[in-house]
Amino acid sequence: MKQIGIGLAGFGTVGAGVFKHLVQNRDLLSQRLGLELAVRRIAVRDPRKPRAVSAPAENFTARWEDVVDDPAVQIVVELMGGIEQARALIVRAIEAGKMVVTGNKALLAEHGKEIFDLAAARQVPVFFEAAVAGGIPIIKAVRESFIGNHIVSVHGIINGTTNYILTRMTDAGLDYAAALAEAQAQGFAEADPTLDVNGWDAAHKAIILASLAYGTWICPGNVFVEGIEHLTARDIGFAKTLGYRIKLLGIIKCDAGGRIEVRVHPTLIPEKHVLASVNGVFNALCVRGDVVGETLFYGRGAGQDPTASAVIADLAEAATALDVKRRDCGFMPHGLYGESKPLDEIVCEYYLRIPVLDKPGVLSQVAGVLGATNIGISSMIQPESDGERTELVLMLHIATHAQVRDAMARITALGCVKGQPQLLRVEHFEG
Amino acid sequence: MKQIGIGLAGFGTVGAGVFKHLVQNRDLLSQRLGLELAVRRIAVRDPRKPRAVSAPAENFTARWEDVVDDPAVQIVVELMGGIEQARALIVRAIEAGKMVVTGNKALLAEHGKEIFDLAAARQVPVFFEAAVAGGIPIIKAVRESFIGNHIVSVHGIINGTTNYILTRMTDAGLDYAAALAEAQAQGFAEADPTLDVNGWDAAHKAIILASLAYGTWICPGNVFVEGIEHLTARDIGFAKTLGYRIKLLGIIKCDAGGRIEVRVHPTLIPEKHVLASVNGVFNALCVRGDVVGETLFYGRGAGQDPTASAVIADLAEAATALDVKRRDCGFMPHGLYGESKPLDEIVCEYYLRIPVLDKPGVLSQVAGVLGATNIGISSMIQPESDGERTELVLMLHIATHAQVRDAMARITALGCVKGQPQLLRVEHFEG
Repeated sequence: MKQIGIGLAGFGTVGAGVFKHLVQNRDLLSQRLGLELAVRRIAVRDPRKPRAVSAPAENFTARWEDVVDDPAVQIVVELMGGIEQARALIVRAIEAGKMVVTGNKALLAEHGKEIFDLAAARQVPVFFEAAVAGGIPIIKAVRESFIGNHIVSVHGIINGTTNYILTRMTDAGLDYAAALAEAQAQGFAEADPTLDVNGWDAAHKAIILASLAYGTWICPGNVFVEGIEHLTARDIGFAKTLGYRIKLLGIIKCDAGGRIEVRVHPTLIPEKHVLASVNGVFNALCVRGDVVGETLFYGRGAGQDPTASAVIADLAEAATALDVKRRDCGFMPHGLYGESKPLDEIVCEYYLRIPVLDKPGVLSQVAGVLGATNIGISSMIQPESDGERTELVLMLHIATHAQVRDAMARITALGCVKGQPQLLRVEHFEG
Repeated sequence: MKQIGIGLAGFGTVGAGVFKHLVQNRDLLSQRLGLELAVRRIAVRDPRKPRAVSAPAENFTARWEDVVDDPAVQIVVELMGGIEQARALIVRAIEAGKMVVTGNKALLAEHGKEIFDLAAARQVPVFFEAAVAGGIPIIKAVRESFIGNHIVSVHGIINGTTNYILTRMTDAGLDYAAALAEAQAQGFAEADPTLDVNGWDAAHKAIILASLAYGTWICPGNVFVEGIEHLTARDIGFAKTLGYRIKLLGIIKCDAGGRIEVRVHPTLIPEKHVLASVNGVFNALCVRGDVVGETLFYGRGAGQDPTASAVIADLAEAATALDVKRRDCGFMPHGLYGESKPLDEIVCEYYLRIPVLDKPGVLSQVAGVLGATNIGISSMIQPESDGERTELVLMLHIATHAQVRDAMARITALGCVKGQPQLLRVEHFEG
């Protein structure tokens, strides 16, 4: 049987998982593919380090360049992480005419345009299913299965760490710090969880999806990103009372004028919506197309095995592409859209919790500001007061980010407001 | 731009939908594909009939052979339905070296082996995403995204008509006849709903999925099929009390010995499982792979637009395959598995409702039969008696179909049993 030579750059959790499953399911893959995927070279920082998954010692090298330059390697798998070395590796592989499989979301979100422009110029396919939502085949679905659709919107739970934290805050009533500590103890959050909890890991994935859906690279500066660090158990409780769950969502939309909106933030979603029941480390994406309507994809978004499944699918596709001499770059540009919507013009509904003095006239002052900034109130809760202080919890009708920023500044300046108001966004998924 | 000539055989709901969306999203498709999909010929029974979707009159023909034989047609789309003409059309297309896109599940379930053997021999790809679960890209997911996985199991709600009926019986307490009448009034069930309600539409789809997952054609005689016609509001009520919902599931599994099990029947599933919240006409499939773990796909399983989305995706793939001269047949044989498990050896848990006389010793007789056939009871409800008659509702531990058939015959013969017992199957989704 014809062999296709694979080079692995990186043999951490995912790289070792890919190797392990290529060995374990070798017969299955060969019979399905009609080709054999043979790992020929593995680049790691320290080739002599003992490893949980063992591979032949002669495959290892400390130089990533060896993986690209080895004439026995036809497909290069980049699983090193980081930006600069990974970028250099991928560029070198494309220039050598070797197909690339990568799971590096940060790299693609920042340098996707450069990489895919080069890939298109050299006619070298680059595959990246593992970069978004692990084992969920969302890249293939958007790129191939929904090729006949204008993508109306994507709403995704695309970070398992934050979904685990929010699930524990919701189900066990933990506060943020306790839930984060538990996630770390369980191995679901890293020692430095910054990129997960501040929303940027999800933002990288949202950028890749939006760029794929709309055929134009979205600049990170045009993405509205807010993390979950400032969420309180109190807000989760009020949201529940109002019939909502709070999830960190990546939201991608395109308006009738072709302007693209990408945002990541904690979001109140109706408790009956299927995304509200996606709990723990699971990921899920709701994709709406103008032809297919509403669809949902659910699965494990990270971890050794699910991510390895995605890398192996890409390897199989790359091997087949090699066999038939396919030359498309893997990215699907079409340029029917092209402009990012200015962040100030993004429109949504809001949840607003305001700590206030418990005295007559307070609600009227707050309502006055909202009226003056032309923002409507759709419902309100005022919990039991302690005699001196209380809170107003308001659900607001749609307004632009600019309108709400203006209102927030005026509300915070009111004498009756005692403390920082909490502003969260709400999605209802119509249309 | 290079044009690819399409021939449509059938211009009913789905065929007209395909034409409509190819026109509406023409620019989008061309830009994404780099090719133009041009419908050149349309076969219908009566070319002069007025139609909701209009196409140029000169494209129409009453002879399906014209679609295949037209030298301007490179890809043939079979959306005629039925078996014999559709089969003749597809065979003729393959023999002419023309790629085929079909949504004909009954045809593939019955003649898939013949069609794909011919396709493989002639090296002509055949695509069939629209044959299973409409707009949900489940064929591509199983075939491509999970190529590195042994498929452990598939559990699918793959018939929208029956899911609508069961949803209405569950949520509104309707009985079967009323829910069916409502589904017909809403256009969700046909005037003759037999193939939907007796489970065979779902069985056709399950056969295609199982054959794809396990690389061997499953014979319809090896599929256990039971419909929803005998379900009562009473059973749905008891299931609710016990913490379950009843769904018509297609279930596909492979045991450690490589023996394949395919069945379709009303199934009690835990109310907390995500499939339990899939309501109305929606479809969903839970696919478990040995590498990727649990995944779920959800969307509209039928209707003009979702099915057209799937056909157009296949057309795009066929057009690209044509362009790069891809030659795989579209089916993925691998022959690692091959044997169907005998129906009598299928093992599952059960729900059993038995109408009995309300007198001492009845439970002991029933329990005696179950004990003698080596079937354990995991829980029981006995509702309020009317003084003369009552019912026993038993949840049974795992047993083979053969064991349960034996027990049912003995229980039905008991003097204290007054009426036909209701036996349903239960799934818990572990592992």
